[in-house]
Amino acid sequence: MTENLQTSIRLRLTLKPGMAIGPGKVAILRSIQETGSISAAGRLIGMSYKRSWQLVDSLNNMFEGPLVQTSKGGQHGGGARLTPLGEKVLALYERILDNTLLAIAPDLRTLKQLSAPSSNC
Amino acid sequence: MTENLQTSIRLRLTLKPGMAIGPGKVAILRSIQETGSISAAGRLIGMSYKRSWQLVDSLNNMFEGPLVQTSKGGQHGGGARLTPLGEKVLALYERILDNTLLAIAPDLRTLKQLSAPSSNC
Repeated sequence: MTENLQTSIRLRLTLKPGMAIGPGKVAILRSIQETGSISAAGRLIGMSYKRSWQLVDSLNNMFEGPLVQTSKGGQHGGGARLTPLGEKVLALYERILDNTLLAIAPDLRTLKQLSAPSSNC
Repeated sequence: MTENLQTSIRLRLTLKPGMAIGPGKVAILRSIQETGSISAAGRLIGMSYKRSWQLVDSLNNMFEGPLVQTSKGGQHGGGARLTPLGEKVLALYERILDNTLLAIAPDLRTLKQLSAPSSNC
């Protein structure tokens, strides 16, 4: 099998009651790291401007400090970048995802092999 | 730390496009295994009767055979039990979850330590 197992798993981690990090928040962090802007980051992953900001706000309040730093001004309304803590949290989540894939790959392949040939659910 | 990390992760596995298994479907499988009835299984985990049946229908169409076998009749509308394939799929998912926890426990603890003292998101 040559399929990319990375796209087969969605992992949501609850850090405290009501405080979780999962695929949506991680996608916007990755995209901000790549684009240097919250609005561009949202566009890149097909997430609305409002939703992108909501997730950034949430992320900035979930940890011991902000994960995303924004700067005002400029033609496109300023930029955004990950703080050192943001880089650290993103790297931790990416490593968690990689280690999950390594740990479950054989069983995930077995599950896939047991699944029906086409989707009707 | 003595907290139960098991409750900190939610893992959703896409087996084919549009065909996924995650915490909801696994919860109803576990509960049917325990109670021997779809309606009792739903009640046990606070899932509506309609939703429980929907998930069972979906599960029964997702794999190469049904995971749940129902029998008609009786005062309470018949029983339900996991087929051998259902037992196999549930055991595989449980092992995947256990192996995920083993693989990520140190990083997950680090992430929790970086999270804010109380939830405001």
